[in-house]
Amino acid sequence: MTHTRAVSNRALSWLDPPAGPAIVLLDQTRLPAEEAYLTCRDIPALDDAIRRLVVRGAPLLGLAGAFGVALAAYRGDDVAAAAERLSRSRPTAVNLSWGAGRALAAYAGALQKAGHGAANHSHAERQAAQAALAEARSIAAEDAAASVAIAGHGLTLLPARARILTHCNTGALVSAGEGTAFAIIVAAHRAGRLAKLWVDETRPLLQGARLTAYEAGRAGIPHAVLPDSAAASLMAAGEVDMVLTGADRIAADGSVANKVGTYALAVLARHHGVPFVVAAPVSTIDFAAREGTAIAVEHRPAEEVTSFAGTAVAPPGSAAYNPAFDVTDAGLVTALVTERGIVQPVNAGTLRGLGTASPPGQGARSGVSVER
Amino acid sequence: MTHTRAVSNRALSWLDPPAGPAIVLLDQTRLPAEEAYLTCRDIPALDDAIRRLVVRGAPLLGLAGAFGVALAAYRGDDVAAAAERLSRSRPTAVNLSWGAGRALAAYAGALQKAGHGAANHSHAERQAAQAALAEARSIAAEDAAASVAIAGHGLTLLPARARILTHCNTGALVSAGEGTAFAIIVAAHRAGRLAKLWVDETRPLLQGARLTAYEAGRAGIPHAVLPDSAAASLMAAGEVDMVLTGADRIAADGSVANKVGTYALAVLARHHGVPFVVAAPVSTIDFAAREGTAIAVEHRPAEEVTSFAGTAVAPPGSAAYNPAFDVTDAGLVTALVTERGIVQPVNAGTLRGLGTASPPGQGARSGVSVER
Repeated sequence: MTHTRAVSNRALSWLDPPAGPAIVLLDQTRLPAEEAYLTCRDIPALDDAIRRLVVRGAPLLGLAGAFGVALAAYRGDDVAAAAERLSRSRPTAVNLSWGAGRALAAYAGALQKAGHGAANHSHAERQAAQAALAEARSIAAEDAAASVAIAGHGLTLLPARARILTHCNTGALVSAGEGTAFAIIVAAHRAGRLAKLWVDETRPLLQGARLTAYEAGRAGIPHAVLPDSAAASLMAAGEVDMVLTGADRIAADGSVANKVGTYALAVLARHHGVPFVVAAPVSTIDFAAREGTAIAVEHRPAEEVTSFAGTAVAPPGSAAYNPAFDVTDAGLVTALVTERGIVQPVNAGTLRGLGTASPPGQGARSGVSVER
Repeated sequence: MTHTRAVSNRALSWLDPPAGPAIVLLDQTRLPAEEAYLTCRDIPALDDAIRRLVVRGAPLLGLAGAFGVALAAYRGDDVAAAAERLSRSRPTAVNLSWGAGRALAAYAGALQKAGHGAANHSHAERQAAQAALAEARSIAAEDAAASVAIAGHGLTLLPARARILTHCNTGALVSAGEGTAFAIIVAAHRAGRLAKLWVDETRPLLQGARLTAYEAGRAGIPHAVLPDSAAASLMAAGEVDMVLTGADRIAADGSVANKVGTYALAVLARHHGVPFVVAAPVSTIDFAAREGTAIAVEHRPAEEVTSFAGTAVAPPGSAAYNPAFDVTDAGLVTALVTERGIVQPVNAGTLRGLGTASPPGQGARSGVSVER
């Protein structure tokens, strides 16, 4: 695991042999101060990078899971164990296990098809590894296409000169395309339909201030950063036409798990009569989680809250309540924008109506349902 | 203006001649890392300290205004000009101009009484300065007494084993006593009636994490710090019995201006059926401001949001929306706890019922109504 610079401008890319096999990650913990890249050559390195949020965001975690399985396959590791481990790196984002599950299924299918005899064992494994990588690349292509489709659908929901408030980070840094909620924002900006982007700083890790403001600045989008707690007075002042966020996992009843603070925005939006819209690919829906309470919420270390960049901001030993996510009732969600269209209202029935084409691995709670 | 250590454990104290005249402030911008004291020997130094939040919090700003006028009087400065300047140091906290106005009235009254002839001019001015200082000391004594009374009244509102969520900082650091909301919390803790204190970190300046956690730790109160945006999920989880905050200015209709984020908490509390209680001395009520929209909200520099401890957290040049306060409709306030008792419901009629014993200077918008 080494840091290099300017390998690519993508948040995640695959490095073929002989330079690889490896996964190159834009280290999001160092943005916006520097654009450094981290090369992960094995599963422990990738697992650590996921836990430390070097790589993060729902769609991108799907890619990390899938390319991680391909990496394990190319290395000749225990591929099912790698998929299992990556699926558990972070408990709330369903895309991680979904991506790992898809690549694992492709690997297992190819291995079975190629035969598993002693004579051509290594050949079969090589073919299976290539199948896992191809599947990961398919997911990336689908994600890029989903991003375009989400942007197109989302645009239809916006008023003429929209002032949009967003939370956390949902752009190209979390996607093989232009992201989810942020893809809509970029499309609106290009269409001359975005008056202003309000960027919640998104404590404790400041993904809004650090990453979304960085992406908005690069895209030339007029924006301002605000403390999360100032969103309420902005809404009261009539300065927000829509709250637009991504999602980390959506339960079958339409409950949305997303970055902590999203639920507060949904309640505030309802109070002020502002639409609260969620943009996410269908892969974010976990039909195995019947309702929001079935979604495990990751709690992260107190230090993320009690210190900042190595400086203590609370007295030594202070305890903290630091959930990474919260869960918003479907009843507070005005609309869900997916690559397959807009779901409105959001409930168990309308979500089921998105179709039965659930990606492999999605039926099981862990998302990794292929036998070892 | 110099920093020294361990002069006193009070947030604000007066230094008599010959060491003075001066006002010694515990530098709250340096807490909890260090307990440093700043000695202000003239009005520009005090004005700067108020603007930089070395000294802050509604009741303490009342003392700063009053002792500041005494300082100007002892120095032989233009006392009315000093009162005017201090009243404008921060636009939202009414206590600042109220305290300055009271001391100025005492000064002017004493000057008139002593006569203003050329012969004993300096003697009259000395007597007037002593009167201003005596008035400042009276305000401090009243504030300490108000703190005790607020604690007593507030305690009656609490359930048996209360889990209280608070925002910003309202304890001994902002008061000549134990504060406002925090005085109730300390009293509840002493009475064995506090199960847990949830401390909103209070972005952008982290008065919760830095100051309230510091005071809670010193008082042995079980507490945990949280990102402001996590309060919603805490309420949804049923972990909050009451939201309890202070106030910087209360309009005649009961609208409460307080640290940004307070209004969000009030909306969230209403959504979750949690009581939202405000504790403040009667001096915080500005009967000249008929409704919340009449309260000027201070907007502070973008850098408070876009950088932290000298480290940029947003890309260079990022704009920010950084109001220091927000305004909560009276309809969202379950009860107002004052030193004169509990006001419930909170509206123009019940506030008027607090009595006509408004302190001097409170009738005018600026709070400084004495003629120069």
